[in-house]
Amino acid sequence: MSDRLRIVLVEPKKGGNVGAVARVMMNFGFYELALVNPPPKDDEMKMFAMHAWDIVEKASIYESFKDAVMECVVVVGTTGILPTSEKEHLRHPMYTIDQLPYILHDVDGKIGIVFGREDNGLTANELGMCDIIATIPTSPEYPSMNLSHAVAITLYEMAGWGGGLRRTLSTFKDRNLFFEKVHEMLLDIDYPSHKIEKTMLVLRRVIGRA
Amino acid sequence: MSDRLRIVLVEPKKGGNVGAVARVMMNFGFYELALVNPPPKDDEMKMFAMHAWDIVEKASIYESFKDAVMECVVVVGTTGILPTSEKEHLRHPMYTIDQLPYILHDVDGKIGIVFGREDNGLTANELGMCDIIATIPTSPEYPSMNLSHAVAITLYEMAGWGGGLRRTLSTFKDRNLFFEKVHEMLLDIDYPSHKIEKTMLVLRRVIGRA
Repeated sequence: MSDRLRIVLVEPKKGGNVGAVARVMMNFGFYELALVNPPPKDDEMKMFAMHAWDIVEKASIYESFKDAVMECVVVVGTTGILPTSEKEHLRHPMYTIDQLPYILHDVDGKIGIVFGREDNGLTANELGMCDIIATIPTSPEYPSMNLSHAVAITLYEMAGWGGGLRRTLSTFKDRNLFFEKVHEMLLDIDYPSHKIEKTMLVLRRVIGRA
Repeated sequence: MSDRLRIVLVEPKKGGNVGAVARVMMNFGFYELALVNPPPKDDEMKMFAMHAWDIVEKASIYESFKDAVMECVVVVGTTGILPTSEKEHLRHPMYTIDQLPYILHDVDGKIGIVFGREDNGLTANELGMCDIIATIPTSPEYPSMNLSHAVAITLYEMAGWGGGLRRTLSTFKDRNLFFEKVHEMLLDIDYPSHKIEKTMLVLRRVIGRA
């Protein structure tokens, strides 16, 4: 199962967090790390990685979110920020992290779970590109978790993920091509420009959940 | 529920870990931290605690494991080391961490969950004083977790702990007094000395699980 999950960190700032994430990945038997614009390797990264330094060494490095998840059949975005309005709800058809193994159990192909920046998480645009949004239920008093703690809890839950190989899904790349075509088409037919973004978002959700 | 759980760190070495533990406690709505021989407060501790520094400031400091859990009705020890022999099994009637909320749900009184040193965890002697031993299932390839990750996963599980107030249990202090009396008695009746330790351990388990 370990080769079917890719952990993606988007623009982590602290080397220690990258190292700590590698360590907890190895603790739970996951090995594929993708880093979008990571900080340079440093002593702190090495210190926190402990015996999992090899995961950091073998991590693939990308310059954009899109590139990091291109081959994934399902892209799971994570957020600590709960939706506050109905419009936000559209953006966040959210699952709690304990539901992930059930939702993903019959997915055939690479699954990417994406974690955002220490301070600001994933951008609305990045979350909009995800098929599923997952959150860890926390106290409303202080919902902001340490990045590697969020990964630790997610992988703890995913370690129980059996993962039969039943369905073959489209990759992010396939879907992206499709979305681009639809977008062009909407522009061609003079679809009201202020509605395009919302329509595209709904479409991504519907396709993502299918 | 938050005032019924005490997180005990036994001789943590790194200030950053103490801070990170405080942060994840606040993330999950727990506030009572007890520290046995902690390192001095430093910048790293403060940096990792973020908005939970108050938990560190209000933490109670002890010089021994015993003192830190004295008022607890149930003492849960944590370990990453799995039992390898039958003798070890006696020492470790283990539960996985996800079972804790169920085991503890009707306990009335303070529960202490104890985490050991970054490198060596809890000693056999310390584990022997616990009523329940809990472990986080990890990959046998690399079971050694970062201290604050172990606390994060434990509190994530305990956050779902409803905790009715149905039973009043004896405190660690009451039980300790009882165990001391039994120990004296065994010595008085010339009970084979090599069996005393094992008998006491079995007794602690039986009482702890009652």
